[in-house]
Order: sequence, then structure tokens, then C-alpha cells
Amino acid sequence: MSMNSFGHLFRVTTWGESHGPALGATVDGCPPGVEVDAASIQHWLDRRKPGQNKYTTQRREADEVEILSGVYDGRSTGTPIQLMIRNTDQRSKDYGDIAEKFRPGHADITYWQKYGIRDPRGGGRSSARETAARVAAAGVARLALGALAPQVKISGYMVQMGPHGIDRNRFDLAQIEENPFWVPDAQAASDWADYLDGLRKSGDSVGAVIEVRASGLPAGLGAPIYGKLDTDLAAAMMSINAVKGVEIGDGMAAAALTGSANADEIFMGADGPEYSSNHAGGILGGISTGQDVIVRFAVKPTSSILTPRATITKAGTPAEIITKGRHDPCVGIRAVPVGEAMMACVLLDHILLQRGQIGGTVGETRGKIG
Amino acid sequence: MSMNSFGHLFRVTTWGESHGPALGATVDGCPPGVEVDAASIQHWLDRRKPGQNKYTTQRREADEVEILSGVYDGRSTGTPIQLMIRNTDQRSKDYGDIAEKFRPGHADITYWQKYGIRDPRGGGRSSARETAARVAAAGVARLALGALAPQVKISGYMVQMGPHGIDRNRFDLAQIEENPFWVPDAQAASDWADYLDGLRKSGDSVGAVIEVRASGLPAGLGAPIYGKLDTDLAAAMMSINAVKGVEIGDGMAAAALTGSANADEIFMGADGPEYSSNHAGGILGGISTGQDVIVRFAVKPTSSILTPRATITKAGTPAEIITKGRHDPCVGIRAVPVGEAMMACVLLDHILLQRGQIGGTVGETRGKIG
Amino acid sequence: MSMNSFGHLFRVTTWGESHGPALGATVDGCPPGVEVDAASIQHWLDRRKPGQNKYTTQRREADEVEILSGVYDGRSTGTPIQLMIRNTDQRSKDYGDIAEKFRPGHADITYWQKYGIRDPRGGGRSSARETAARVAAAGVARLALGALAPQVKISGYMVQMGPHGIDRNRFDLAQIEENPFWVPDAQAASDWADYLDGLRKSGDSVGAVIEVRASGLPAGLGAPIYGKLDTDLAAAMMSINAVKGVEIGDGMAAAALTGSANADEIFMGADGPEYSSNHAGGILGGISTGQDVIVRFAVKPTSSILTPRATITKAGTPAEIITKGRHDPCVGIRAVPVGEAMMACVLLDHILLQRGQIGGTVGETRGKIG
Amino acid sequence: MSMNSFGHLFRVTTWGESHGPALGATVDGCPPGVEVDAASIQHWLDRRKPGQNKYTTQRREADEVEILSGVYDGRSTGTPIQLMIRNTDQRSKDYGDIAEKFRPGHADITYWQKYGIRDPRGGGRSSARETAARVAAAGVARLALGALAPQVKISGYMVQMGPHGIDRNRFDLAQIEENPFWVPDAQAASDWADYLDGLRKSGDSVGAVIEVRASGLPAGLGAPIYGKLDTDLAAAMMSINAVKGVEIGDGMAAAALTGSANADEIFMGADGPEYSSNHAGGILGGISTGQDVIVRFAVKPTSSILTPRATITKAGTPAEIITKGRHDPCVGIRAVPVGEAMMACVLLDHILLQRGQIGGTVGETRGKIG
Repeated sequence: MSMNSFGHLFRVTTWGESHGPALGATVDGCPPGVEVDAASIQHWLDRRKPGQNKYTTQRREADEVEILSGVYDGRSTGTPIQLMIRNTDQRSKDYGDIAEKFRPGHADITYWQKYGIRDPRGGGRSSARETAARVAAAGVARLALGALAPQVKISGYMVQMGPHGIDRNRFDLAQIEENPFWVPDAQAASDWADYLDGLRKSGDSVGAVIEVRASGLPAGLGAPIYGKLDTDLAAAMMSINAVKGVEIGDGMAAAALTGSANADEIFMGADGPEYSSNHAGGILGGISTGQDVIVRFAVKPTSSILTPRATITKAGTPAEIITKGRHDPCVGIRAVPVGEAMMACVLLDHILLQRGQIGGTVGETRGKIG
Repeated sequence: MSMNSFGHLFRVTTWGESHGPALGATVDGCPPGVEVDAASIQHWLDRRKPGQNKYTTQRREADEVEILSGVYDGRSTGTPIQLMIRNTDQRSKDYGDIAEKFRPGHADITYWQKYGIRDPRGGGRSSARETAARVAAAGVARLALGALAPQVKISGYMVQMGPHGIDRNRFDLAQIEENPFWVPDAQAASDWADYLDGLRKSGDSVGAVIEVRASGLPAGLGAPIYGKLDTDLAAAMMSINAVKGVEIGDGMAAAALTGSANADEIFMGADGPEYSSNHAGGILGGISTGQDVIVRFAVKPTSSILTPRATITKAGTPAEIITKGRHDPCVGIRAVPVGEAMMACVLLDHILLQRGQIGGTVGETRGKIG
Repeated sequence: MSMNSFGHLFRVTTWGESHGPALGATVDGCPPGVEVDAASIQHWLDRRKPGQNKYTTQRREADEVEILSGVYDGRSTGTPIQLMIRNTDQRSKDYGDIAEKFRPGHADITYWQKYGIRDPRGGGRSSARETAARVAAAGVARLALGALAPQVKISGYMVQMGPHGIDRNRFDLAQIEENPFWVPDAQAASDWADYLDGLRKSGDSVGAVIEVRASGLPAGLGAPIYGKLDTDLAAAMMSINAVKGVEIGDGMAAAALTGSANADEIFMGADGPEYSSNHAGGILGGISTGQDVIVRFAVKPTSSILTPRATITKAGTPAEIITKGRHDPCVGIRAVPVGEAMMACVLLDHILLQRGQIGGTVGETRGKIG
Repeated sequence: MSMNSFGHLFRVTTWGESHGPALGATVDGCPPGVEVDAASIQHWLDRRKPGQNKYTTQRREADEVEILSGVYDGRSTGTPIQLMIRNTDQRSKDYGDIAEKFRPGHADITYWQKYGIRDPRGGGRSSARETAARVAAAGVARLALGALAPQVKISGYMVQMGPHGIDRNRFDLAQIEENPFWVPDAQAASDWADYLDGLRKSGDSVGAVIEVRASGLPAGLGAPIYGKLDTDLAAAMMSINAVKGVEIGDGMAAAALTGSANADEIFMGADGPEYSSNHAGGILGGISTGQDVIVRFAVKPTSSILTPRATITKAGTPAEIITKGRHDPCVGIRAVPVGEAMMACVLLDHILLQRGQIGGTVGETRGKIG
């Protein structure tokens, strides 16, 4: 019952703090024989890496992954794959001001209450830096997915920054790689750049909504009742720092619909059932339908801001706090690759589960239609 | 790795189908010495029971719980508590029409694809009837909470039905027991009654949003990184039938806030830290702050409706489907006690975890403030 | 982390006490589509049932299993199978004498110390009656094995009663069904009958060694390092009441061997590798070789005896105890079907795990030889 | 469901291969505030380290542990503690001969069959080198035990080498540190030295029996039915390389006893119940009695020997094999610290579990006697 692990058959344990010697992930359950190389994992880490543009923290971390075990002669052996990332830019002096005060909206205070240990160096284990380990682990998951289910594609992107949403009529996945926000709407990218510049200069921060979409999935993934695909995705996304809400398909908006409007009508296509719409986000009863799986999550604004806020010290004395240092004005930007990472891990896990529980190869279903 | 279990130290496994002989819950991890009696559990089951007013399915189930093990001389023994509810109203003839066709928006099709077994009797394991077992198990959790943390109060209520939300200015928890919707707003109760009457007559259904609030919690509950209190709550709520979104505190709306607006400022109160607001929903970094824990979830409209929808049969033939039978026009109503149940189970579980990991009695924290 | 569950993908949770209303097993992870019927499960329960001859407790229990869920139209649905056995012969008056005193060598005292609850009715949860639930669950496992791996055969038998072992030169599996001890040695059966008669009359009891053998297994089962096939078998057997030792292959005697004597030499047979001997008990590095898997376990003598022993009461007062009632002079006899049951559950579990981790059908291995 | 993890609340995941860059352990669940330092962990690693005398492999490994996370300012923070040991002496050329042939009695062949990957460099993940990670993790467990339950003492020692057992009349724990075999019998130490010299020269190897004893334990540890203290110990010991049998208390010899002889009679002592004997090995019904917990396990002889044995190649061709290289003539010697390590981890885990399930501090029991 490791509290730092997730997954059933593909199980990832992350470890490490923001300013310790290193952080990483112990990846257990990667099938044997998968081609695994550090360069492929590094590719995904580089996407998440801070300091790449003016909208993310200027902390400079090489974030170089080292594979310590589980790979021999370029292939996974079926034994645990240990991925280590050394921390290199540990300017802990930046955090001096927060050693005694608690940041409102930050886990400082609850970690102190729970553990009685105050690691003021950048949030310790509660730092978003922990997500680098997830992205590395998901690099392995992606390689395994590539071998087992090469048709699966995962795309994460921002659909809202602060109060500004995208225009779904301009939705264009090709735009994702063209702007610093991974937003599939060129106009939004431009508008948001101006908006975020202003925020950054004012020393404030803002929230965001990220959407992650997986296509090419087989029907039948998900393990009712308490290992449903959407249950596991909700847990996976909610475990990301600063996430306050998770939606599948229509999400919260489903509440406003009538049953007749919400029904994704079913037709017979050449390769199996097809649907008139995807209100369900590709999941019914916790099991994938074969449509795109669509998850959204809301990231609250960073609590480390320059605007002074009222707080208390460890001694219980009233105080005011301003958090200097290198922080992201919209931490949601860097949550995009993390959301993709969690999707990759959950999908691989359920593909392996499906093999164990039901047998057969990926995409084989027990109940044939037509 | 039971896929029909949830919880860490307080672990519940539900079993049973809509129209089998019985359903129930195996409750493992209830501390010894707790007064457990069937009548107390029955109280909560009766709240969830269908057929109590015209807005819920007219299926008549006694839903009588029988305690088969784990209780001796009126007290829990520390061994598994088996709770069984016999199914008594199994009019399976009502479901004849759907034996061959799949209902759009229902788990019929995915269960068929995954398992290759079609149990047409009321949805089988995917039926909302499974939640009776959760409510029974939570009856045990509530009794244990009453013994360990009597100051904890859990309240569930509807805050939105279809497009109609409550007016937070009229929010009054006392109203919850006064109307069939458990809505804390007398005016909304009246408006919704008219709205739902119309929907019911038209043979359609509608979604809802439920909020569950726990007060009186100690700080320090939650097990980062992958057993966070909000992670476990998100999974718990998303596992409920028809749920498509889960929010903690401000939820999806947190995305629109600036960091300065989102910060719950901290003051020193007589009994510890107090906060100026509760955007966080009582959880920071996955750990409870001691404020009210607030969770919301959206329930999609029932897919079993009288409005004809396009579908296919198991043979892949196009068809049209109308679902007759006894269905809820707003299944969200009956989700209220289920949401409360999941909250009770998750909270007890984390109280036990906190004891094991950190030691001390409930409410003791490692890090003192002031 | 249910403490009343075992298994990974095929997961069994047992519940119930010796003298409560019922006991049973929640069986999660049976693959869908397996033919499951109560009569087949009853067959195995009847083998374990007490009161069948003069060497086992004269308690009369019908031990009738009822399937409450998870089976539709004669086949497993992939959802939890609930198996319930009502307790019918609850002569709890027999146990009056032990309500205040602790039996030396019995779990009375430790259950009291741990839980602070004294259920004097036949040992409560610590009673060997709990194993009926395992045998029922294993009935499901056997049916699934029959479908997935029909060549697998499991045989349990006694190889030692008290100081008297069998003669391996007379080993004949056909004898197992011919005597009340399931001993594969006709001469031993006769000798033991005399021996046990004497013991029973003297009011004493005696221990035993049981061997369980599985043949027809594929190579490749077992999940190093901490889910090794032998690790899981050791845990499974040690969890049986009164077991004090577990051996794989040569077991404790392996300590006395040299490496050259212990090496099972390898030859190439028509269907794959063959071995000159089986010191390893069919398991190397925690993974099955394809040879017979051989496990032995020692059962200590029943502590409920007529010979007076010194003890204390709950109040700490010195006392002498004689346990009247209906007890087995050699509880090891009834442990034979329980050992078989645990073997069946562990093997099915590892076959499912192997499918999930490695893919392919039962018996397919990743690494081919020859 | 990590297959490379063990423990419930104190959970250890080991990773790494014999000849990869590094190996280590991810330790999750160490309570916060425990003083943890590399030197203390190194102390235990040094005991296990090979090459310390002529009776263990001459491989020269520094086995230096590095703490990568979970410790701040000399104390555990409650987050995962990552322990890494770099492999430095990787003379993989020594293993050239076994790249194509399987060693009889070794996991070579089953790893190949299961995973289809052949890592000929010293056995890869199946190497006894993996146990260094366990010893490191147990170093953390010992430090936590020292803080929570300082009266607990753990002693491991050899009681049999090949056919030669110790004389219990000469049993003297003080001797353990005085000889290379950790044997509590000076005469045996001397005799075994001669015996093992002969074996080593002949190129053969031999098995051993190790006993591990824990004193100073509270009553009440162990979580029936499937997390019994003896069940977890059996699994822990059986998971060690080359172990073929595990015994608790009298172990296999319990089978030969009568109930009257086996009963550990109970008396009232100054601090609680005392026992006339300890046939039970300190565990009744899976729960600790407060007496010494006594576990023994048999280690088979190393399969890597100079005596030629018949085998086959990956191609299925008959062959003869001699394993040159640096191997232990009695690998059981180095299993002593590993057995101690597993005991420490299991005990800490059950102390934490007991706190979570039952509440109170270490040693408090629910049911008082006297």
C-alpha cells in the first residue's frame, strides 16, 4: 500500500523532493522486450522542463534521465526500471523567506501539520517538480504502448487560461506545437500571451484547464466497479499538483442535459459500433467504448505570488507573505505534459489488466457485435 | 487487487447484481469495539431506497440489511463485517426489450464488449442498485466515525438539477430533510418539483450536481502523493454510476481565478489556524486543512428513457430503442446518499491511515502551530 | 489492503466466524464465461466437511454453499462471485468453559490481546471453520483452471501423522481416496488408524504433514521478486490454521545437500526441457519450471484437548483447562483439502498474472528453447 | 500490485540487477521524524558485503549506500526514502560461459522462459545481489524500530551448515560476532570452517539453515487471516534467493508432537502472561504473543559450482556446464543478514498496522489480562 505509487499491473512509484539530490520513478510491470532508451524518455522530459520560455519558472534544470535498471541490451527485461533525475539547480536561498511562514493556498501548512517536518527548499515533496518523475515513467509507458497498441495517440493541450477559453470552432491540434501554451487555437495563443505577460508583470498568477485526449483505443478497457477507466483517470489527474476538478466527456456540463440530448446514438460502422456524438468521453460504465477518451482538469493558480497575503508563522504569529523566487505565472502550462503522462500510464495499465482478466491480444473483446 | 474494492485500511468490497439473489458489501478494517447494529445501517439504506416518492424509480425493494459476520454482542470484532441485502422485487420481464439492443449512453454495450456476457435483467452489475451496498458499508463507517471522531458531520445535497442551480444566498442545510431532492434551498425545491414533473411526463430524464460537505475534520488527513485525500475522493465519487465530473472546493472554476483571489488567507484562531475563505475545499497538497472538505460531482441523465433513440442490436442491426420500466427521471436524487456514503468511507479510511503512519489519536498532528 | 484477502488478479476475501449466522468468500477476478455451478463447488466442500468419520470433529454442518452473485445463466460474468455457507450447528454451550480461560497453544489469548473482544463460541474468526470459505472459493478456481488449463491436476495427501511418516516406496496416489487420511500408502493408512484411535481415546491430539502436488503446469508462472510462486505458496499455506512450517521441493532437507547433489540436471525432451530430478519442487527463482510443483506443510496438534493444562483467566488468575467439545484428534486430516484449495487459487492467480504481464495464452512462454 | 514490493504500511520496493549501473530500494512508509543517516545503514550493508572472508564470493563491491530522498536535516520526512547502491565490480567477462547454457538448479532457465530475455551478467535480477537492497531498506526499518520500539532486538545466525547442525546446549548468542558463519556455537564454527574449506576446494557448495529471533516484541502484532505475522514472515523469508523452507517455532517438527506436548502453558507474570515453553515461536493465530518470535529457513546450495553437470543450451542442445567465477561455497552465510533484514521490515510494518487498525502506542493492547 505504497502511498507514492499508482497503477495496478503497470505500477509507478515516484520519489524525491524539489531540492534533494535527485528524484525519480520506480517503474514496475513494463512488459519484457520493449525497446527502451533514455533518449526517448528524455524527449518527453524536455517538453515538461522549466525555463524554456518566459511563461514558465526560470529555474534551470537539465532534467537528464538516467536508466539505472530493468533494461538490458536496449530492451526491457520485465524487472523494475529505475529512472533517476539529478537535481542540479538547487538555489535554496531563494526560499529563505518561507521557512517560517505558510503560503496561503500552498501545501506548506498541511505538510507541516501532518509530518511535523518543514523542508523550506521549494516545497519539498509537494513541489510540482515531482511530476518530472511521472513524465519519465510515462516515457516507458509510451514505449510499451507503441509496441502493444501503436494506433493509440495521446494529445494534451490547454483549453482555458484564467477566464479565457478557446474557441472550439478554431480547434486545430496542429497548433499545439506552435505556441508556448500547447493551445489548439492560434488566436487564443496570441491573446493569452498578452494576458499572461500582464499577469506576470503584476506578480500574480492564474489557473487553467487542460484537456487530454486519447484516440485509437480498443473497446473494453476498464475494470468495474472500483478500477473503472474513468475512476482511475480521475484519481490520476486529481493527484497532479494544484488540480481541483476532473471531467470526463461533457463533465460537469452533463448535469444540465436531458437524457435524450446526452444519448450518444449508436450505428454500425465497418469496424464495429460508431457513435453520433461523444458526450460520454469514450467511457460507459467505466469501460472504454472505442471512441476518443476525453479528460479535462482544472489547475488552480500558483500560490507563490508577489502579491502580499495575510498568513501566520509556525509560531502562530500573524504575518504577511510575498513569495519571491522563480515561479510559473500559469503552472497549468507545464501540467499539459503531466496530464498526457498520466493518461499514458493509466491506458497501458488497463491494457495489461484487460489481458490478464479477459485474455487475448489488445483490442480483442469477449463480446462481438455484428 | 480486487477491482470491486476500495479503501486502504478501511476496505470495502461490494458484490451483487441488480437482479441476482442478493447484493452486499464485505467491510474489512472496521476497528474492534465499535457498536454496530443493523438498525443504524438500515437508517441510511432507507434514505437511498427507491420508490419513496414519485421522482424515483417505482421499483419496490425492502432493502433490508442482514449482518452475517464481524459483529458479536453488538460490537465489531475487528474481523470482516458481511452485509447482505436480498433482492426481492425482480420483475425482470420489464427488461425484455433490451436483451438484444444496447441503450445509448448505457454500459450495456461496453459490458458486452468486455465480458461477452449479457445480463439483461436491469443492468446486472452496472446497475445503480450496486450503490445500496456502498450505503450499507458506509453505515459501518459512520458508526466507527461516531466512535473515533464524533465531531465529524457529513451532509450531501443537490445544488443543481438540469440547468437549474440553487441560489447560494438562500442556502439552508435545514431544508435538506424537508424536500424530496435534499436541496438546501426551499424555493429551488418547489421549482424543481414542477420542472421534474414535466420531464417525467415527457419520458425524458435530466442530470444533476451533488455537493457533499464534511465538517469537524482534523487537519493532517491524506497520504501524498497518490493517496491524497482529494485523489481518493475523486476516485470515490467518479466510481458512482453516471458521474462525469468531480470538483474539490472551487473545482473547475479555480481555473478562472488569479493567485491573489484564490489564496485562502490564514489567521490564528483560538484552536489553531483559521482561513478567510475556502477556495481549496479544505484540502491543500492532498492533506486536510481542518476546514470543511467540499466535493461536488455531476451525474449525467439516466439513459433509460421513453424518447426513441437510434441504436444497434448484438447482431449489429440498426434499431430504435425505448426503455420502458421503472426508471428515475433524475437519478442524481438517489446519488445524494451515495455521495455521503463514499465521503464517510474515505474519511474513516484516512483517519485510520493517519493513525498508522503518524501515530497518535484522531486530530493529533505532528507539527504544532502556535 | 484487506487483511482478509489473498491473491493478486484472482482475489479471495473470506469472512465469517465459527458460530455466526454464516461464513463465505467474495471471489473477485474469476474470468468471465467459466461454467460455475453450486454442485461442483459443493463437491469440494463435502470433502472438507467435518463429521464424516470418527477421526474428525463430530460437529454436524451441512456446509451448503449458496451462490449469491457473479454467475448468470450458469456462467461467471466477470463480476464478484459471492459464496455463502450458513452455519447450522451452533451448539455454543459446548464452549462455556473457555469463555474466561485461555487454551494454551490456541489463538484465544492473542485475539483477546489484539482485539479486546472475546467470542468464546468456537474460536470465532480463528476457527478452522474459516477454511470452508477457502475451499468454496477454490471450487471456483478449479472450474476456471479446468477451462483455462485443463491439464493441471492438484493432489493433496498426508505424508506424516505425528511421528509416523509414509514409506515413499509404497507411494500410490490411487490410495488417497481409499482411506480417511488421504494417505497415498495403504499400510500407513492402516497403522495410522490404530494410532489415532489410541490418541483420541486418551483425549490427546497430534500434528501432521500434508503434501500438495500440482502437475501439468506450464513453465513461466511466478512474479519475481516478491510475488514468486513459492513465496505466494508459502504465504498461502502458512495462513492455514495451525501451520508451522512450509517446504518447497526438498524443503528444509535442501540445507543438507551439496550443490552437485541438488542440481536437477536438464535434458531436452520432445516437448521442451526435462529434468533428471525435482529437488527444486518445480520452482526456480520463484518461477515454475514445468515440473510438478510440490509443497509440504506441517500442522501442529489441536490445542483443544482433554489433557489438563495450566493456564490463566482473563483476570490473570491461574487455572487449569480441559477443552471438552467436538474436536479433531488430528486436525491435519481436514487440512488436506484446504492445502489443495490454496494451491488451486495461487495457480489460477499466477496464470492470470502471467497473461497480463507477458501476454499470450496459458503455457506460451516468451523465451523458447530449442 | 508491484511485484517488486513487499509490506503493507512500511513498503519496500527493490530494483536493480547484478551487473547494471546500480541497485537499490524505494522505502515508502517510514514514519516522519526518525533519525536516518547513511552511516547507520552502511553498517548493516557492510555485514552482508561479499568478499570479507574466504567463505564468501571474492567479488569486491564497495556497496556504498547513497540516500537520494526522504531525509531532510537528518530526519525522515514521511516521504519515500530512495537508497541507491552503485555496482562497481562488474567483471561480466566471468560469466561468458553461461550466456548460452542454463545452470541446473538456477533461475537462468525460468527467467528465460518467462521473460525471453537473457542477461548473462551474473544472474541479472535473480542474483543474490538484490538482497543488498533489502538490507539497506531494513537499515531504515531498524532506525524506525529503534525510535518506536527500542526494546526489540533481532538476531540472525546459522544453525546448520550442510548436514552439520549446532549443539543447542552450547548455544551462545555472544559467539555470533566471533566467527565468519554467525553461528552461536564456538565448536561448530571451528568444525564448519574445516568442512567448508574442503568443499570450496572441491568446487562444490552446500546448503544451510538460518534462524532469526526477535525479542522484546509486544503482544498483538499480526493481521488475521491473510496478513498474519507468520504468513508475512513466511513470504518474506521464502522470497530470499535459494530458500526452500520456512519454519515458525517448532516448524516441521510440530507435526510429530501431541497436543499436550505442544501446549505452551500460560502463567501470570509481573508484566503479563508468561509461557512455560515456546513451541509456537511467539505466534498464535497469526498474532504475536509477546514471546520471542522465532523463524528458520533453509537455503539450498549454490547452483554455480565447478562440478560438471548435464544441461542444455538455449538452442536445446545437450551440454555440460561448469560455472567458473566468484561464487559462495555456502551462500547461506550471507543470507543471515538478509533474514534479519526481512524480520526488521516485517516487524515495523506490523507495528504500524497495529497502530492504524487498533490505535494506541506500540505495546498497548486492546484486551488487558489481569
